[in-house]
Order: sequence, then structure tokens, then C-alpha cells
Amino acid sequence: MPEPLPRLTQPLPLLYERIVRQALEEDLGRAGDITTDAIVPSGASAKGSVVARTPGRIAGLEIALSAFRQLDPAISFEVRAADGSDATAGEVLALLEGQARALLTAERTALNLLGRLCGIATTTRDVVAAVTPYGARVVCTRKTTPGLRAIEKYAVRAGGGSNHRFGLDDAVLIKDNHRILAGSLTEAVRRVRACVGHMVKIEAEVDTLVQLEEALSLAVDSILLDNMSLQDLARGVLMAKGKAITEASGGITPDTAAAVAATGVDLLSIGWITHSAPSLDVSFDLFL
Amino acid sequence: MPEPLPRLTQPLPLLYERIVRQALEEDLGRAGDITTDAIVPSGASAKGSVVARTPGRIAGLEIALSAFRQLDPAISFEVRAADGSDATAGEVLALLEGQARALLTAERTALNLLGRLCGIATTTRDVVAAVTPYGARVVCTRKTTPGLRAIEKYAVRAGGGSNHRFGLDDAVLIKDNHRILAGSLTEAVRRVRACVGHMVKIEAEVDTLVQLEEALSLAVDSILLDNMSLQDLARGVLMAKGKAITEASGGITPDTAAAVAATGVDLLSIGWITHSAPSLDVSFDLFL
Amino acid sequence: MPEPLPRLTQPLPLLYERIVRQALEEDLGRAGDITTDAIVPSGASAKGSVVARTPGRIAGLEIALSAFRQLDPAISFEVRAADGSDATAGEVLALLEGQARALLTAERTALNLLGRLCGIATTTRDVVAAVTPYGARVVCTRKTTPGLRAIEKYAVRAGGGSNHRFGLDDAVLIKDNHRILAGSLTEAVRRVRACVGHMVKIEAEVDTLVQLEEALSLAVDSILLDNMSLQDLARGVLMAKGKAITEASGGITPDTAAAVAATGVDLLSIGWITHSAPSLDVSFDLFL
Amino acid sequence: MPEPLPRLTQPLPLLYERIVRQALEEDLGRAGDITTDAIVPSGASAKGSVVARTPGRIAGLEIALSAFRQLDPAISFEVRAADGSDATAGEVLALLEGQARALLTAERTALNLLGRLCGIATTTRDVVAAVTPYGARVVCTRKTTPGLRAIEKYAVRAGGGSNHRFGLDDAVLIKDNHRILAGSLTEAVRRVRACVGHMVKIEAEVDTLVQLEEALSLAVDSILLDNMSLQDLARGVLMAKGKAITEASGGITPDTAAAVAATGVDLLSIGWITHSAPSLDVSFDLFL
Amino acid sequence: MPEPLPRLTQPLPLLYERIVRQALEEDLGRAGDITTDAIVPSGASAKGSVVARTPGRIAGLEIALSAFRQLDPAISFEVRAADGSDATAGEVLALLEGQARALLTAERTALNLLGRLCGIATTTRDVVAAVTPYGARVVCTRKTTPGLRAIEKYAVRAGGGSNHRFGLDDAVLIKDNHRILAGSLTEAVRRVRACVGHMVKIEAEVDTLVQLEEALSLAVDSILLDNMSLQDLARGVLMAKGKAITEASGGITPDTAAAVAATGVDLLSIGWITHSAPSLDVSFDLFL
Amino acid sequence: MPEPLPRLTQPLPLLYERIVRQALEEDLGRAGDITTDAIVPSGASAKGSVVARTPGRIAGLEIALSAFRQLDPAISFEVRAADGSDATAGEVLALLEGQARALLTAERTALNLLGRLCGIATTTRDVVAAVTPYGARVVCTRKTTPGLRAIEKYAVRAGGGSNHRFGLDDAVLIKDNHRILAGSLTEAVRRVRACVGHMVKIEAEVDTLVQLEEALSLAVDSILLDNMSLQDLARGVLMAKGKAITEASGGITPDTAAAVAATGVDLLSIGWITHSAPSLDVSFDLFL
Repeated sequence: MPEPLPRLTQPLPLLYERIVRQALEEDLGRAGDITTDAIVPSGASAKGSVVARTPGRIAGLEIALSAFRQLDPAISFEVRAADGSDATAGEVLALLEGQARALLTAERTALNLLGRLCGIATTTRDVVAAVTPYGARVVCTRKTTPGLRAIEKYAVRAGGGSNHRFGLDDAVLIKDNHRILAGSLTEAVRRVRACVGHMVKIEAEVDTLVQLEEALSLAVDSILLDNMSLQDLARGVLMAKGKAITEASGGITPDTAAAVAATGVDLLSIGWITHSAPSLDVSFDLFL
Repeated sequence: MPEPLPRLTQPLPLLYERIVRQALEEDLGRAGDITTDAIVPSGASAKGSVVARTPGRIAGLEIALSAFRQLDPAISFEVRAADGSDATAGEVLALLEGQARALLTAERTALNLLGRLCGIATTTRDVVAAVTPYGARVVCTRKTTPGLRAIEKYAVRAGGGSNHRFGLDDAVLIKDNHRILAGSLTEAVRRVRACVGHMVKIEAEVDTLVQLEEALSLAVDSILLDNMSLQDLARGVLMAKGKAITEASGGITPDTAAAVAATGVDLLSIGWITHSAPSLDVSFDLFL
Repeated sequence: MPEPLPRLTQPLPLLYERIVRQALEEDLGRAGDITTDAIVPSGASAKGSVVARTPGRIAGLEIALSAFRQLDPAISFEVRAADGSDATAGEVLALLEGQARALLTAERTALNLLGRLCGIATTTRDVVAAVTPYGARVVCTRKTTPGLRAIEKYAVRAGGGSNHRFGLDDAVLIKDNHRILAGSLTEAVRRVRACVGHMVKIEAEVDTLVQLEEALSLAVDSILLDNMSLQDLARGVLMAKGKAITEASGGITPDTAAAVAATGVDLLSIGWITHSAPSLDVSFDLFL
Repeated sequence: MPEPLPRLTQPLPLLYERIVRQALEEDLGRAGDITTDAIVPSGASAKGSVVARTPGRIAGLEIALSAFRQLDPAISFEVRAADGSDATAGEVLALLEGQARALLTAERTALNLLGRLCGIATTTRDVVAAVTPYGARVVCTRKTTPGLRAIEKYAVRAGGGSNHRFGLDDAVLIKDNHRILAGSLTEAVRRVRACVGHMVKIEAEVDTLVQLEEALSLAVDSILLDNMSLQDLARGVLMAKGKAITEASGGITPDTAAAVAATGVDLLSIGWITHSAPSLDVSFDLFL
Repeated sequence: MPEPLPRLTQPLPLLYERIVRQALEEDLGRAGDITTDAIVPSGASAKGSVVARTPGRIAGLEIALSAFRQLDPAISFEVRAADGSDATAGEVLALLEGQARALLTAERTALNLLGRLCGIATTTRDVVAAVTPYGARVVCTRKTTPGLRAIEKYAVRAGGGSNHRFGLDDAVLIKDNHRILAGSLTEAVRRVRACVGHMVKIEAEVDTLVQLEEALSLAVDSILLDNMSLQDLARGVLMAKGKAITEASGGITPDTAAAVAATGVDLLSIGWITHSAPSLDVSFDLFL
Repeated sequence: MPEPLPRLTQPLPLLYERIVRQALEEDLGRAGDITTDAIVPSGASAKGSVVARTPGRIAGLEIALSAFRQLDPAISFEVRAADGSDATAGEVLALLEGQARALLTAERTALNLLGRLCGIATTTRDVVAAVTPYGARVVCTRKTTPGLRAIEKYAVRAGGGSNHRFGLDDAVLIKDNHRILAGSLTEAVRRVRACVGHMVKIEAEVDTLVQLEEALSLAVDSILLDNMSLQDLARGVLMAKGKAITEASGGITPDTAAAVAATGVDLLSIGWITHSAPSLDVSFDLFL
């Protein structure tokens, strides 16, 4: 029986409430929601639902709903779909009840967040499904939306993917430019080992099998096989077997992922799932 | 002879330098670029180029390059492509010269910004091309990435599109929920006119031709025809001729835009160009 | 029967709580209220009232009271006067009960906000009363206190005035310098129309009746008649009748407003109501 | 020969550049100066002058001009009037040369700051002139604009006034509420002396001559005579002679200041000079 | 009977909650507590206690505990030790009950704050004990940790010490460099008196008894005797008796404080208690 | 020949300039340096030197000097001592020339930063010297000053130490509480491996040799031997030889470090070097 999906943990509100607040402030500008303020009485309350218009993997529902709570702290939610689960078209993801104005004013901010995060999770899920038969895992990159990395990496996990580095400071990745500036991969690894602490993993990027050979001799934790042909990839995987984790990268799309996974590589690093995943179509319906 | 593209004005650095700085801080974390710091000597300088790997419409080049400048104020640029112009595959967009470390450390932040903005501009350009023969214009929505609205709306302009509201506070858009809560569109417009200043435009959303008739009687500035069939859209356009600007909305994609434009509608409001446009593939190559 | 006052909507706390917090931090400095902390026991509770010492129009009562709540979240209020209503000398505007220290420490911040906003509302109210017999309305400008624009524009509405632009980005106002740099008003309007979206209104400033004639030919949304003599103003109003909204500006004070309104102009744009309105005298009385 | 005015020191930019930046951001909103961006070419440069339209005391010229520099770091200034000097009507205060767009876009922010600070300085100057013959000095209060205290207190100095506390934390002022909560002024002073450090001055507010007697017995640094009749004030001054600095407060206006000063009091504490001083009329003229 | 310790007042949360939040954000980074999130179920609750491992003076307990509350607003505390009291080794300072994750995640931030503040209070207490027999008091300096001044000065008070200036702006301290740049202490004092308000105290630093004589003639509020020999210090104290408060400074350590106090000086100014006090060993124990 | 010290890389200004600015703002308060402003003419320039009064390891010199540059961007430095080098008593670390006011006003902020960072580096250096004969390395912890972690970890490197985790998010450390909440270390490791990415190292804390045996069977990257007796530590090191990196922790001080290192452990984790290191005595001398 296959290992179940990794346990998915909601991020702490401290990690996203500033993102949500800045998004609200961006939308409210100086004068606030002048349409709603003019039309809807301040005392009116209302109910509404967040709905998935098209099927997809849910991610960030609590994050998105916090936009409503920031405008109406007394709002009540009934969350009906868990992050990491799949919704059908038309499925109600959450029911809300609170001030009518807050519901209308926060709607777009909430949906913008939810649509993006579900879009990433859905695309990730589909790629994961394509590569799982080959025993490979999907890994995200640092090609995330400026300002949203923490929650987009969470959406990748909700889609069944795994996270690579969160930033430049939590692991070493020696890329081609580093190798060239150091003179050789061997020298680059030597310099890194003289600097970083014992809790930092080291990955080396290689473009050729010759470079791979050098990388394997250096006992790095994992090796990024970048932009290789499928044949070279397959050969590289055999060479690295039992010596280092292998990770394929370079322009992988949902369409090409299965073929890459078929080479036996351990991980597929795919920027596409964060930088080009289309939003999931989600809506907010007011009950009247 | 058709009106030339609107003049495209670079946003003031004050409007985006905080976005860029937060993106750098997000990537640098607490410890900075531990790979580059370990490998590249602090005194080393280098040259590099920003390149479009696939063809597309350029947007945000100055914005993206400012990421390098924030790390190395003495960096020098030679910008070779103007925002709003089209780049070919492999075209060099800019040449840079400065500290080698700054070039490597800011690379991902700069490319994340550039890829996203060019992606939006490219998709917008393509939709604009599809609808221009019908005399229609493409308008963006508030379905933008949280935190990036100002620069994404700029990318839409670079793609030849036009901007709708920047937020909830700079124009009135009476949507279905507002209409229902007010009792009627007529009452909603009355309430709005009693509140907002004389420099604020008013748009009303309608779902049916009956509602359109009511909207036309109210002398609003423009009317959003939401989720209508192409037939109804065409009829609505005829009804509104000379009385109000017409704007079609509701799930329009690059594939369906031309058919919608063929109805004669003035504007197409398309969330897709900001929330689902894939990134353009841009890269940074170090000269060594 | 005259149109009732526009419905006045409290701004969302999100739009002002940062202003209030910064004001508290400014007053507390590093060490806090050293007088109160030394004298008043931490457990003591007290009651107090916010009182209008002189008669005036109330504005910003909730905003001001939020200063107390930021120091004591459990404080209880009884708000006795609505924003937009007129208070008599000595009228109790609100009763408070909570920690004695919080009441004393937040007092000055709350009163500084309230006095200023009521001052603006009161002056606006008086000018509105002077011009209403002529059918004119009072409009504020961008001559507001740095950092307080959102709440000062709200105070203008509480005084019965109407808002002009909230900033440089939500409407076009072509001033003399723009006209001169463009070569002509016609060219300036052409450039603007090539750039801005369909939800943006355009106003042109003119200094002479000749310029007004040009402006009228351009079908702009409204025309600012700047620093004109009363005679020219009256002639200009006649020329613009039915073609554009007219707005008088240029050094109008509470004393001169009625004469300007008598020219028949639609709107009077008055910086004085925000930049030179004296504070209303409000006080906080502790019950002991 | 009278003591010359205190030397006036420009505040460090660190103390005001955030105020100026927030004011610019408030005015620019999300989209910036859409009028200027549409009309004025990005490369155009221009000259302009800041002019006092009405005579007054100058304060905050460098602060105001920094708004231009924040938009165009290469802008050049020729400052022609010193803070603390008096300008005549029409006097050119500064000449500027730089990007035409920056000049137009920053104009209002700069003038809003300058008009307010000069207004405070001018009113202060006038009150100082009225009370100086009696040997009294003018002192400001904490009744300043939220967010602007540091620069408004500077404007008071530029007007020849002196500063009272900058906040609740830099000196002790025992007001009536403190006295009542402590049981007596004697007890209040005892509590304060048990808490605060040796570098903190202590002032006591008294409402009656009986309270003044008690205050004098406590050897506080200064005594605030609040809302006393002119007769009581004069008697109080005699009682306090040589024992404590005396300070009159309570609704003093420019009109009543001289009579208060004639009682012989050392200081007049006047909230009016910050909370109700009208702006000075300053303008920015572009040279074309 | 000696005067009891000054009443110790908890700082307002507004004065420290940003410090605590920034500390949490610094520790959480982008991805949060990945260990706890993986291991501890989100619903689990737990109890724990904050314990002093070594004896010491308690300071900042509420401040430190607020770290837990920022992650779990529903957490409940039982605070068992008051700031300003002495704890024995192993004493339970507080009991907590709340979400298990929040307890584990906030633990280090809370302990870092508590250990530092108790360390300062404990060292201060010990120095106070050493100098009290001589009637002297201990005063802190501006040699505090960047960003933590407000709470470190509070810890000094909790240790029985007194506060000197909180910053450069709340009192005047004329140091040797000021004196030299002015030409003489007399001239320096004259310049200061021409500038600062009546609520600002003035202290002069002197290095020799000759300078002390000059300082005494100027009627400053207090005099800092800097780096003097014990003999000179004793002589200086006699000279200043009844004329000014005397304060010794310059490299005083816990070991040398008693000897300095024996000279009869009023105050000992000791940077050591904030910049070099070792942390108190405090721990958090989970009940399981 | 032993491996030379790791190359020490200056942190990017982006990583510390906010810390320095907040420290300046904290010291300047609202009114700035009122002593210097009153006494020193604004045009005066001066020279000064930063001097080590006692011998020590230098760290953070550029960081500290940036405080001067934030007040006077034109200041010139001659840096004479490199971070990571040892200074003798009286050694001049840097020469400065610039505005006299900026030198005096930024002095304390600069010295507070420098003294703390050199203090950490010096203590670290001494501990490193004590354990190096045994082949062990010194590692810091998360017991750093709130807000200063990034620069304090840098100071540890300047002292020859190595960094452990920068926060809760960049590596896994399974502590006793995690183990107990999971039921066993084996289960805790299983849960972690199901969640975290492949670039994250895993360390387990053990208290007994029995737990160590379990940890060794789990192939974690390193093992923290917490609060063990020296005998157990020595035995544990033998058990782990070749299987995992060993790290000793628990109340290690400069005095006990050598004995711990003699057990053969790979790393000593010492909170003392950051939370209890005394400041190095550094001063700023003005040349006159």
C-alpha cells in the first residue's frame, strides 16, 4: 500500500495575516468600498457561500476566509472542505454569516487568494498523479509570486507536492554560475563546506554526465540534473543510484512530467506549478 | 486610421520599490544567499544579460532590474527592450554589470517579477489582437495577485489593454448583490448618487436585457453585461448604442474573446489575463 | 423639498486604526505615560465622558474612541451623538467606562482626532449652509493634513460637503501647468484620453472664458473655473449650462462662499475647510 | 538688548522622511499621478519656484522640499528663505529644477506640509510678539496633529515659541484627574517621586490659589495655572515668585494672550497655535 | 524605616507587542515550526510551566508570556511570580494551558525575552544591594540592546534601579565632546538654555574637579563625574553637596560599585547592568 | 595542517539596515539629539575614531558604522580592522570624517551594536580556542537577542563558531517534548519524514544512551546529546562514531567547554555565547 499523502498542516495565522491585510488595504484604497457603503445599510447581516465553480484541489480556504474576519471579527464560518481534498464543480466550500457589508467588501480579496492557491494545488495534484506511477515526487521551486512564497509553497503541499528551498538561506544549491565562478564543482563544494553549518543540506546542479560523475564523488546530499535529454537523465539516474537523491529540472510542464518521471528520477522540480498554474474558478454567492 | 496604442508610462519607483524589497527580503530570509556568499568572492564583478527565452510582450523590465540595484546601488544597466515592445526568442532585454554576488542573489527575484509581468502583457496582447478587428478593447479586472495590483495593471497596459477600477474606492460598480440588497437597480443608483462625489463614474452590472433597459434609463456611465449569451449580448449592444458604454464580462478566455467582440460590445472585461496568464520564460545569463 | 444629506457611512476600522495607533505611539514614546503610571493603580477603573465644550458638527467620534479601545480592549462605550449631527455646548457625546489608566493615557490622542475632525465638519457645515440657498454644493480638495486624508474627507461628508479626488490616481484634473506643458487644453485632453480607462472622470481647469470655450468643446466631465472674478464666473456658468458641471475654486473662504455660490456655479471647491478649519473644543471629563 | 531667538536647528531627515513618504504614498495611491503621466513626457525637465502668497513666518522648507527629492533624487534646489525668517507676500522661498513630472506630482504634498508648518510658525510668531513686551514666553502643548508632532513642535520653535513635553513619557504633568485619583496633590507628587528618574521634570496643574499654595510647598519644577481668572493669575504669579516657574493655560487665543501675559506669568501654554492655526498660503509656480 | 522600592508598573502592551511579534516572526521565518507542525496534531492541547532554574529577580513575565498569546489568543495563564520579586531555583513562575503547538512554537521566543530581562533585573538587584548601605542609587544608561530599550529600562526598575534618559531627546547631557566643541562648559550650557524647553533637565559631565567647579557655578540639575578616582569622587561629592545631584560613571562593574558608592555620590550610572548582564536560566516544561 | 577558519562574508546591508535604523529611531525619539543640536553648529565637520578599549575579536564593524552613514550619507570611513580579526587594547578600528553632529548623534547606537557583536565574537573565539585541540567545533543556538538573530549569528562566525538553525523553519530538531508527544522518537521521525522536503536536515535530541541507540537506528543527520554526564557523553560519542554527527548541549559555559570537548563530541552547542557574553568595551573618540 502506498504511503499516504504527507500530513498537511495549516500555516500559523502569523505567517499570512499580513499578506491578507495588505491585500485588503490594496483593494480598499483610501475611501473603502464606496459602492457597498452607499447601498448596503451598516446594520444589515447576510449569509453567503464560497463555491468551487470548476472541480479542483482545495488549498488556502482558512487563509482566504480570514479576509472576511479581518473586516468583521464576529463573522461565523462553517468550513465544509478541507485543504488537500478535491472539490466537485458547484461544491460549497464554506458557509459564512456576518455583516453584509463585510461579506461584499472582502469577497474579491478572499477569492483572489483562494483561486490562486487552489489553482496551484490543482495543477500540482495533476502532475503528482502523472508521476506517482513511476515512484517520483513533485517538488516546487523559488519561482513563486513575490510576497506569496509561504502560502504558495503550502498550496503545493496541499496538491501532494513537496517543497524545495523556501529561500536562498535555508539550503545550498550550487548552480552552473556558481560552479563556473569557483572554477570547478569540487572547489565550489569545498568553499561551501568551509562556510555553512552542519544543519544545511547541499545540492549540486549538473548539466552533463561528466559533471554528474564529479558531483557523485563529492557526496553532496542531492543532485539537480538540469535540462538533460531523457536518455541522459535515465543514465544519470543509474549512475547516482544509492549515492545521491536525483532531481530533474528545466522547463518541465504538466505535459512532459510523466516522461521525465519514467527515467526513474527521484524528484521533478517544476516551476510551472507556481508561476503558470491558472486560477481555479471560485465564487462567492450571497443568500438573499 | 486606428488610434495608436495608449502612451505607456513607467510607474514611479515609489509605487513598486517596496514590492521589490519585500520580494528580496522574502528570498534572502535571515541568512542571505548562503551559496553565493560561500563561493563568490565579495570583490568579484561580473556581467550578465536578461534574455527572453520565448517570444513575448515586454513589461516591467525597469521594475525587475531594480531588484539588482537594491543589492548593488552602483550596478549599471543597458536596457535594450522597451516595455510595450515585442521580444523574439533569445532576445537580450538588458545587459548588466556589477558585483557578481548581487547579480546572482537578485536573479530569481528579478526574473519572478519579469516573467509574471511579461506573461500578463503577452496574454493581454494576444487577446487585444483578437478583438481589435471588431473595434473592441480589452479591460482588466480586480482579479489580480494580492499585493501586485499596481504593477499587474501596468502590465495590462503594456499589453495594449485598458484598466478598469484599481480598487473598491475609485469608481462605483453596482453588482447583482448590490442590486438585490437595494431592492432594485434604480434604488441602488439613487443611493449611490446621494453619496459619491462628482468625480466618480458609475457602472451597473446587468444579467438580462430587462435589467439593461432599467440601467439605460438611469444614465449610468457604463453597463457591464455579465454572463450573457452571445445573442443577448448583441441585442444588448444595440439597445445601449449611444446611451452607455457596454462591457462584456463573465468567464471570457483568450479562446472566446473574438466571438464576444463580434457582438459589437465596446469593452471585454477579462480576469484571465491577470489571474491565469502563464509566466513568460525569461532567464539571466552570466558572462564569464 | 430639498434632497436630504447624503447617507453618511462610518469608514471601516481597517482604514483608520493604523492612524490611531501611530498617534498613540507618538504620544507614548518609549516609556509611556509616566505620570499616570506613577499615580493611578493598575487595577483602578473609572468612568468618563467626552463633551463638546462649544457647539459644532460631530465627526469621527468612533474613530476617536478607538484610541481608548486600543489601550483597553474591554472598555465600554455609550455613544450619544451620531457623526453628522450637531451638538450643543456642553453636550455629552459619549460615556466611557474602563481602566482608569487607559482613560487618562488615551485622552489626548482621542481629543486631538475628534477636535480636528469636528472642526472640519463644523466649518464645512457652515459653508454648506451659506451656499445651499443658491443650489450649490461644497467640495473638498487634496489640501488635507498629510496622513489624515481618508478621515478628513470623511469629516467633510459629515459636514454635508462632497468629496473631490482622494488622490492623484482616481480622477484626472488637468491644471494650468498640464495645459501649458501639452501646448493646449485640446492636446492635453487628447493625451489623457489615450491613456486612462473608461471608469476615470476628466476635469479641466480654466482661468479665462476663452479657455472655457475650448474646454466645453472637449466634452470633459466637469470644469474648474479657477480664480475668476464673480462676473466671469457668472458668465462662465451660463456658457457651461447643460454641457458640463462647473466648479469654482481659488481662495474661497467661509466669508466669500455665498457670493461665489450666487453666480450659479454647481460646486465650490474649498481647501480652507480642511487646511484652516479651527479645531472644535472637546474635552474628556473623568467621573470621580 | 533682548536675548536673541533660540538657535533653530533643522530636524534630522530621519525624523521626518517617513512622514513625507507616507504623505506622497497617500496622494499617489495605487496608480500614481495619472494626469501628469498622461500629459508630460517622462524626459521633460522643468524649473519652478515655491512662493509665499501671503506674508508669514517660514518653517519646514527643507522638510517640504524633500517631497520633490523623494520623487526625483537628482532634483536641485536653491533655498532662498531660512526657516525662522519672515517672508513677504510674493517672496520666492525656493527655486527648483528637475524632472517636470516629479515637480508636478510632488507639488501638493510639499505645499500641504509647508502651508501647515508656516501657518503654525506664523501664528506662533504673532502671539510671541504680543506677549514678549511682558517678558513672557509662548509654549506649545500636545494638542498637535496626529502623526506630525515632531515637525509641528519644530514649527513652533521657528515661530519663536518654546516646546513643552513632546509626549507622555518625557516629563511629568500632574493634572486635575491625577490629583483627584491620588487623593491630593501632595500624595500625587510623592508617588511620582518614588517612580521617575532624576532627569525628569515635574509640573503640577492647579485650578485655585489654595491648590497653588500646596503645589509651592512641594518644590515641583513648574506649576500650570489652569483656567484662572486674570486676577487670580496675577495673584498666583506673585505667590510663586522665585519658587517655581508659572505657566498659564486654558483656552488662550491670539486675542487673549497679551492680557494673560500682563499678569506676569512666565509662560503661556497655547494649544491654539498647533490645533487651530490657519495654513499659510503658499504656491508652486512652474517656469515655462 | 527605608522608603520601599518604587512602585513598578507593567508597560502597556502597545509598547512591547511589536517587539514580541518581530521576535516570533524572526524565529518562524517563512515556513514556521516545521518540527512541531509535523509531529504535534493541530487539535492537541497541553499544559506547561515557566520555571526559574537558578534564583533571580523576575522581570518581564507578562511580556514574555504574550509570545504564547500571540500564537494562541485563547491560551490561559496563571502567573505566580510578580515582576520585581525574587524567585528561588526551581520556582514555577507561571502555568500555561493552551494549544500544544503554540506552547512549543513560542517557547524559545518567550524564554529569550524572559531570560534577558530577568538577567538585567537580577544583576541590577545585586548592585543595588551593594550600594544601598551607602544611600546611593543605581541608574542605567543608553547602553541597551538595539530595539529593546523600553523593556530593558523596565527590567532595571524591576531590579530596583532607576532610569536615566530613555533617548537623546528627553533630557540634556553635555558630554566632554560637546564641551570641547562649544569652547567651554559655560558656553555649552548657555547654548542649551537658549534652545530647550522648560521641562527639560540638564546634566553636565565633568572629568576633573576644576570642571566640576565650573559646572556648579552654572546651576545645572545634575553632574556626571566621569572616570574619576575614588579620592576625586569623594572630594567632588563634598563640593557639590546641596548644589547639584552627583552621578558617578565610567566602567563601574558589580565588583567596584560598593567602593564608588562609599564616596557618598548620589547615583551610580552603570552600563554593565544592561550590556553585560548574563541571562537568567529559565525554562519551559511541558506537562504530559 | 588544520583547515583555516571558514571564510567570513559580510551580510548584505538589506539584512541589517532596518535593525540599525530602528536603533537610531529608538535613540532619537521624537525630538532628536537635543544636546548636540543646541551646541554643535550644523555646518561643523569633525573626525573621530572607533577604538577597542579592551582586546577582543572584531565583528560587525561595517554594521555599526552604517549608523553614522544613515545620519550623514557623505561620511567617509577608513576601516582598519577586519571582522574576524583580533584587536589589541587601544587599537583604532576605524577612522571617520563627516558632520560633527552626525558623529555625536550616532555614536551610542554604533557602539551598542559593535560592543555586543564583538562581545559575542570574543567569547566565541575563546571557547573555540578551548575546544579546538579536541577537534570539536562550537555551534550557536536560537538563544539570541530578539530582533538581532541574523547579526548575532554572524558574530558567532566571526568568532570562529558555526551556526545551527537560524529559526524554526530551516531544519528539524526533535526535542524531548516532541518525542513525548509523538509517543516515541521513531514515530516522531516518521511523522517528520512524511512532511518535510528533501533539502531539510533532521536532528534528534536524546537524554540517555538508550534513546541514543534508537536515534542511531533512524539514520537522522545528527544527534543532540542533551545534559548528559561527561561519561555518558563519551560513551555516546563512541556509539555514534561513523553513524551520525554528535552535538553536546545543556548549560555548557566557557569554563566547562574543554571538558565536554574532551569526550570526542563533534559539536558543542552553547547558548551562553549569545545570551550571556559581556559586551566588548569600545569607544568613539572625537579628534578636536
